Amino acid sequence: MRAAIALSLRGQGRTAPNPNVGCIIVKGTVVIGRGWTQPGGRPHAEAQALAQADGLTDGATAYASLEPCFHLSPRGPRCVELIARAGIARVVIAAADPDPRTNGQSIAWLRAQGITVDTGVLADEARAAMDGFFARQTLGRPAVTLKLGLSLDGCIACGDGSSQWITSAPARHHAHVMRAHHDAILVGRGTWWADKPRLNIRLPGLEDHAPQRILLGHGAPPDGWAIIDDPTRIADIEGASRLMVEGGAQTAAAFLAADLVDTLLLYRAPIILGGGKPGVADIGLPSLDAAHGRWRLVDRRMLGVDAMEVYARARAG
Amino acid sequence: MRAAIALSLRGQGRTAPNPNVGCIIVKGTVVIGRGWTQPGGRPHAEAQALAQADGLTDGATAYASLEPCFHLSPRGPRCVELIARAGIARVVIAAADPDPRTNGQSIAWLRAQGITVDTGVLADEARAAMDGFFARQTLGRPAVTLKLGLSLDGCIACGDGSSQWITSAPARHHAHVMRAHHDAILVGRGTWWADKPRLNIRLPGLEDHAPQRILLGHGAPPDGWAIIDDPTRIADIEGASRLMVEGGAQTAAAFLAADLVDTLLLYRAPIILGGGKPGVADIGLPSLDAAHGRWRLVDRRMLGVDAMEVYARARAG
Ligand SMILES: NC(=O)c1ccc[n+]([C@@H]2O[C@H](COP(=O)([O-])OP(=O)(O)OC[C@H]3O[C@@H](n4cnc5c(N)ncnc54)[C@H](OP(=O)(O)O)[C@@H]3O)[C@@H](O)[C@H]2O)c1
Ligand SMILES: NC(=O)c1ccc[n+]([C@@H]2O[C@H](COP(=O)([O-])OP(=O)(O)OC[C@H]3O[C@@H](n4cnc5c(N)ncnc54)[C@H](OP(=O)(O)O)[C@@H]3O)[C@@H](O)[C@H]2O)c1
Repeated sequence: MRAAIALSLRGQGRTAPNPNVGCIIVKGTVVIGRGWTQPGGRPHAEAQALAQADGLTDGATAYASLEPCFHLSPRGPRCVELIARAGIARVVIAAADPDPRTNGQSIAWLRAQGITVDTGVLADEARAAMDGFFARQTLGRPAVTLKLGLSLDGCIACGDGSSQWITSAPARHHAHVMRAHHDAILVGRGTWWADKPRLNIRLPGLEDHAPQRILLGHGAPPDGWAIIDDPTRIADIEGASRLMVEGGAQTAAAFLAADLVDTLLLYRAPIILGGGKPGVADIGLPSLDAAHGRWRLVDRRMLGVDAMEVYARARAG
Repeated sequence: MRAAIALSLRGQGRTAPNPNVGCIIVKGTVVIGRGWTQPGGRPHAEAQALAQADGLTDGATAYASLEPCFHLSPRGPRCVELIARAGIARVVIAAADPDPRTNGQSIAWLRAQGITVDTGVLADEARAAMDGFFARQTLGRPAVTLKLGLSLDGCIACGDGSSQWITSAPARHHAHVMRAHHDAILVGRGTWWADKPRLNIRLPGLEDHAPQRILLGHGAPPDGWAIIDDPTRIADIEGASRLMVEGGAQTAAAFLAADLVDTLLLYRAPIILGGGKPGVADIGLPSLDAAHGRWRLVDRRMLGVDAMEVYARARAG
């Protein structure tokens, strides 16, 4: 299942509104098929993995990071039927599909066909890998990553406004890879004026993957950009289930104050800017106590001299 | 040698103006004596280790984190003579003693007695463990640790000034242990007014170890405190070879701007204070480039939910 979830990450940021599922077919001790949801949302991971294993699937086990789809679509066959037709003997599922058109029905249907179904295997990990789809289904908005490049003392720019570069090349390359895992990228109008960011992905092999570009602010957007005038409007961004917010300070504060940040992605450079521009403007915190218990460290690694830190919003349930 | 250096840390912050040396005596594969400089600077590590090994030292090897002392003192015997008298066959030394009264003379003298002497073993590690002594000898001032308890966005207090507590109990306990490794602790007058910090060590077994308390600012100091009106005056603090600066923001900036910080000790809480009080005020940075290359991560660990990060000032030579 861990391998299936890892595969699912390949589709992250490119399958909206579909979930980025990962699927592996195993016969005995041999992996005979691997699949992940393709850009645009089709083919599904299961269809891909089954096609790869064609002719060998009789009696095999399928590991899927999400419950296979139950509903009919003009764009492709139902995965549950493909699975049954292929003679799969056992299906192991990480997370149930919250989409009301599936939501447990596939599990029941597969069992009715005499197929063994196990569920809940690494469900949290799978949901985290498909956070955009789950945010859309349960919160009605994209999952939001707030990315900031910070000094040790929490600044995103010098006192004079210069911010190129705070982090070094390995961290900036990593940030570009992370862009490719989001459907849309947003910056505040202040950042747009100051930096004219291109928000493209300047990495070999990923040049063609340009996430949507969104501004937070008022007025007409520049060419090639969309604009929203309030953080809550992210729900309206079509075709985006993962949104990366790249600052600046007011924009970061606006999303944090609205509790619309699910993941903090911090690149921390070993520098002190003393008296520079703080990374986060006023978020209207009622007290110091209220700041605690909201963020949980989920990943950390060194990228050259910089540290990458990932925190997840700790929400009840 | 690693064990001798580890022992030397037990004296850190309690031996000024003497170096906090560590010493181990080994015969065959058995450790027969261990010593470290005692509070107040005497007995010396070597004298302690030799006393512990009494009667067994003939032909043994001594590992000392610093070149043994050569100069005569009314407070105790010269370590070189103790070593020769004990019949030690070989002395392994980490760092040479920069004190002009010793400075290589012990090494020459021991060799003249027919004792094998090896030098330079883990010299950098030893110097780091005795940083206060080396700062006094080579820079003419104490080694300075700047300690800050910060939020992810680099704040030391909420917008309303409240700062109790940003970090959680394990990090605060660790900070108390670090106090015990410094001879003196300094805060700015603003922090004194705001927090009335006691700067004592509230940990079982360490209550008696109270570092000197120093204010940065102008006017008369409160009872039990000394005051200096400029960061460069730390050179005048008697009996202190390790100074811990505990903030606030102006004080941190004053020491950083004067390039008087050797070690950054950061306790980072997983909270965002957005619009809080930045940890470091203006340090007069001429450009973003000038901020790079100054700090090198030397230690990091989790203390409960908080991260401790230690950075050393990267100085040429
Ligand atoms: N190191 C890094 O990672 C990084 C990243 C990004 C930016 N930066 C730096 O950050 C600086 C810019 O930051 P900034 O704080 O000045 O500007 P900003 O957050 O980029 O943009 C501010 C603008 O965003 C809009 N806005 C903010 N909150 C809003 C809300 N709740 N509803 C609607 N619109 C809202 C407003 O636009 P309108 O005026 O149109 O209403 C406001 O003027 C630049 O110096 C840039 O270089 C650094
Ligand atoms: N989280 C933490 O780790 C932490 C630690 C400490 C403090 N804090 C918080 O920080 C806040 C206080 O910080 P702050 O920046 O306002 O005050 P501060 O740095 O503690 O003290 C400012 C005072 O220091 C003196 N000073 C500063 N630079 C100087 C220089 N170059 N030469 C001589 N004197 C100098 C001046 O005293 P005179 O006016 O007498 O000249 C100045 O008024 C409080 O809210 C406190 O709770 C948090």
